[in-house]
Amino acid sequence: MRLATLNDGTRDGRLVLVSPAGDHYAPAPVATLQELMEQWDALTPQLAAIAEFPEALASATLLAPLPRAWQWLDGSAFQSHGDLMDAIIGITKPKTDVPLMYQGMSDTFMASGTDARFPSEDLGIDFEGEFGVIVDAVPMGTTAAEALRHIRLVVQINDWSLRTLAGPEMKTGFGWVGAKPACAMAPYAVTPDELGDAWKDGRVCLDLLVDWNGKRFGAANGHAMGYGFHELVAHAARTRDLVAGTVIGSGTVSNANFREIGSSCIAERRGIEVLDEGEPKTAFMAFGDTVRMEAVDAAGRAPFGVLHQRVVKA
Amino acid sequence: MRLATLNDGTRDGRLVLVSPAGDHYAPAPVATLQELMEQWDALTPQLAAIAEFPEALASATLLAPLPRAWQWLDGSAFQSHGDLMDAIIGITKPKTDVPLMYQGMSDTFMASGTDARFPSEDLGIDFEGEFGVIVDAVPMGTTAAEALRHIRLVVQINDWSLRTLAGPEMKTGFGWVGAKPACAMAPYAVTPDELGDAWKDGRVCLDLLVDWNGKRFGAANGHAMGYGFHELVAHAARTRDLVAGTVIGSGTVSNANFREIGSSCIAERRGIEVLDEGEPKTAFMAFGDTVRMEAVDAAGRAPFGVLHQRVVKA
Repeated sequence: MRLATLNDGTRDGRLVLVSPAGDHYAPAPVATLQELMEQWDALTPQLAAIAEFPEALASATLLAPLPRAWQWLDGSAFQSHGDLMDAIIGITKPKTDVPLMYQGMSDTFMASGTDARFPSEDLGIDFEGEFGVIVDAVPMGTTAAEALRHIRLVVQINDWSLRTLAGPEMKTGFGWVGAKPACAMAPYAVTPDELGDAWKDGRVCLDLLVDWNGKRFGAANGHAMGYGFHELVAHAARTRDLVAGTVIGSGTVSNANFREIGSSCIAERRGIEVLDEGEPKTAFMAFGDTVRMEAVDAAGRAPFGVLHQRVVKA
Repeated sequence: MRLATLNDGTRDGRLVLVSPAGDHYAPAPVATLQELMEQWDALTPQLAAIAEFPEALASATLLAPLPRAWQWLDGSAFQSHGDLMDAIIGITKPKTDVPLMYQGMSDTFMASGTDARFPSEDLGIDFEGEFGVIVDAVPMGTTAAEALRHIRLVVQINDWSLRTLAGPEMKTGFGWVGAKPACAMAPYAVTPDELGDAWKDGRVCLDLLVDWNGKRFGAANGHAMGYGFHELVAHAARTRDLVAGTVIGSGTVSNANFREIGSSCIAERRGIEVLDEGEPKTAFMAFGDTVRMEAVDAAGRAPFGVLHQRVVKA
């Protein structure tokens, strides 16, 4: 199933089910995606029974599938990304046997097509292409094996980052606030089965195509997560109950052969430049720049749709 | 004005206005505190006009005044606390000219009287007594001077902390997830004017009386914040719009004469023991332990009511 949220003028929008062909939609039996997450088992049979898709999707304006969430916990599960970032930030993390994760701003997930507003170009404006999952209610202490069945939907996210603030905030130990404003979410949330073989070991095994100002910047594949999403969910639930509708992120998608396939954020490319050339060469984003992200399967299909935004001055 | 939220079986409860005498209540002209924060200017005249308080408060069961929030950003504005914590965690923070702040779990604020559930005593279960404010919508880039008028309500919070996880999580630079499960909030949210002279320079100048297992543990005063709440709000809004209903915390209330007046968390006392005796002597909380917090003014009045909880095994 593919779900989308119509912009009907309300904060949470109106949930719809997208047709198998991807060009039409039908109203969902519940108003919002948040409500669906709270009543997943009761409502999905009704969703699955929908056979008529009367409205053309082309005529609709979409919000993010989940326009706001009660909780957003973002991991950093791609080792090749983490190693590079540590190198350029100059932080030495202790070795741990648990995933890296921070709690981020969840009251807004921007829609594709909306402008991303930032106060200054001096903040080191950067995109971060990643995947995420949305869970139903996960009790405290849930194991990774149990967590897999709580992963109800998969999404694609741009975790906007302000690099000038990121390093100093990390060094306080308190994590990011200024460096991590609102994220954006690609138009469609899909059930894991919709991804077919590309959903494997709790990982989204799709290439994430990232274009900056119309030019290919990265095409890393989601298979390379050091921890699967089920392990991230279990980590998040170690000392808290996860509320239904919690979004868990993978962190920037990255592969070890980043010199060939590129990166899902500018900071990573700058890290490579530091390693290879002694200093970063690529500047961060300027006002007016655009970024486009699309995860594609072997047949060229994009299950989450296209996530594109322009950067503007707030 | 003092506001409370009745437990009516819903997740967000039912907002009520408490009588000036503090023993009765009247229904508010809006269902929830979140809705009030979104329409503060339009609704407060109706609230202020309420003169009849027909129901006895003693017969009501209360939730936290804001049982869940879209955003919870907690500062660490008391320097005497920060210095001690750094010493025992073994982290050297860079000197900064901005407040310390992390984004915490906001989907649940526990009510006074509910049990606080944790999976293990080995996690270093600790309370943190603090003050907080609830703002209406704050635009990105709001200055500290402007932020003062966005502070609509003041609350009292116990920011539960799991110390065994806190240090290792700080050292990753990602901040806390496992170490910071749900907070609790004292029963009443009050407008700043309700505090009289005790609301000064964006600070809550009240003694926060903290009792652990019935014994006085601390009585620090909120005046000693290195940054006022308005400065914390402005810091939070540097790169994001703050959604109405955002809760901003002071961090653990602490005064420099902590050896005389005690502490608002166990970790701080342990820090003092490390300084004075070379090692921590006081153990963290055990299952069955209780903590009670009450902020009192010179006349002994407690504007936020009493926040008490018992620690139990999850």
